[in-house]
Amino acid sequence: MLGVLGGMGPMATVDFLAKLVRATPAGRDQDHIPTLVCSAVDIPDRADAILGAGPDPLPAMRAALARLEAGGATRIAIPCNTAHHWHAALQAGTALPILHIVDAVAETLARTETETGIAAGTGGRVGLLATDGTLRTGLYRERLARRGLTCLGPDPEGQAAVAAAIRLVKAHRVAEARPLLEAQVRALAEAGCDRVVMACTEIPIALAGSDPSGRLVDATEALARACVAACRPDQRPACGAQTAALPRAA
Amino acid sequence: MLGVLGGMGPMATVDFLAKLVRATPAGRDQDHIPTLVCSAVDIPDRADAILGAGPDPLPAMRAALARLEAGGATRIAIPCNTAHHWHAALQAGTALPILHIVDAVAETLARTETETGIAAGTGGRVGLLATDGTLRTGLYRERLARRGLTCLGPDPEGQAAVAAAIRLVKAHRVAEARPLLEAQVRALAEAGCDRVVMACTEIPIALAGSDPSGRLVDATEALARACVAACRPDQRPACGAQTAALPRAA
Repeated sequence: MLGVLGGMGPMATVDFLAKLVRATPAGRDQDHIPTLVCSAVDIPDRADAILGAGPDPLPAMRAALARLEAGGATRIAIPCNTAHHWHAALQAGTALPILHIVDAVAETLARTETETGIAAGTGGRVGLLATDGTLRTGLYRERLARRGLTCLGPDPEGQAAVAAAIRLVKAHRVAEARPLLEAQVRALAEAGCDRVVMACTEIPIALAGSDPSGRLVDATEALARACVAACRPDQRPACGAQTAALPRAA
Repeated sequence: MLGVLGGMGPMATVDFLAKLVRATPAGRDQDHIPTLVCSAVDIPDRADAILGAGPDPLPAMRAALARLEAGGATRIAIPCNTAHHWHAALQAGTALPILHIVDAVAETLARTETETGIAAGTGGRVGLLATDGTLRTGLYRERLARRGLTCLGPDPEGQAAVAAAIRLVKAHRVAEARPLLEAQVRALAEAGCDRVVMACTEIPIALAGSDPSGRLVDATEALARACVAACRPDQRPACGAQTAALPRAA
């Protein structure tokens, strides 16, 4: 059973689950992927912690992972980019494989280059829309560099607008967030990025349907597709049978 | 922590979770309701079982409930109307309170009567768009009769169209489902129903944004609002703290 360590934020988790359902080839309920989701909304803010401005979220993430393990999950996805700063620490504490969102994005970048004919840009340059925390950790920069890609974030003023937009989405103010993000997509395109990764799960919620150029890469959707691939019917035993694995509750 | 016994179907569960997030007064992740969701997609079809045409879904529902209990849920919601045929059997097997979707709808009917001035119609008549199984069980008919309301379903041909529409939604063919359902809403209105309950969680997915008259009542949204009320900040201990309730996974 796929375990989803979610709630970072809660609507981003819902967006991920919708993309997981849509990405699954299915004609009836029983064709879908059995999933256990922990929307652990009280995990302290990840970006704040990275910037030294808030408590460590790792204990709360571990507690949520323990709930997923107790409930019978056999493979984990985390629909929050910034949380992947703690991917290695979480993986060290569990035998369950945890998919990595940046690897999923890298696979999408490689696949869409072939499909769309859009090259990775001058010097293989990829734009990043992400939290301050994700940019600070170098999560994408280091992992995409191994594939010969250079990451570029907005300038400081633009990055402040991205951070503000993310907070607006978390507060249900999606319509206000959208123009702030669209301006940064344009700025990154003008700076030579043929592709721009929406590397925070709040961002595709605001930019849904806003990509006539095919330039945007949705990290949430990339992770959903990676989950579908990992839980294909022929791989399904690795995701675990749904029923009868636990005794009936007293 | 709120436990969601879901996956019946998986997109209906996602729709419920989106409505839960939107119905929660929140300015940041930590204001939302900690939630554990089991998308138990291999639960046998509920409507088929009621009609004697498929296996009993109760054992698989109990197994999913056991996963939620093992993961730390303290209160349960089931975003599937037909599954409420087994509400009493599930409640008998657990100490956790299980909200009832028909009670949530009844509360919404009572509240919207006051807010919109739309009366319950001639003889308090309420239309029902539901699975054959839900209609057969009398789930809504009996529970709403206690509040002085009479339920009316489509005629046999209309009901066949509703059942076909539900299957289309489960197969991702939402656009084809919509006109089938709209025709039945019109037919029920012409039969004297001032309000029509979307009493299958697949139906609001197809009819989203399709209610200029304010006639439709969304059972999924009603259940989400009932969860928010049950998990208000002053009630939150009853929903359980998120972290530190389980030991860290080895």
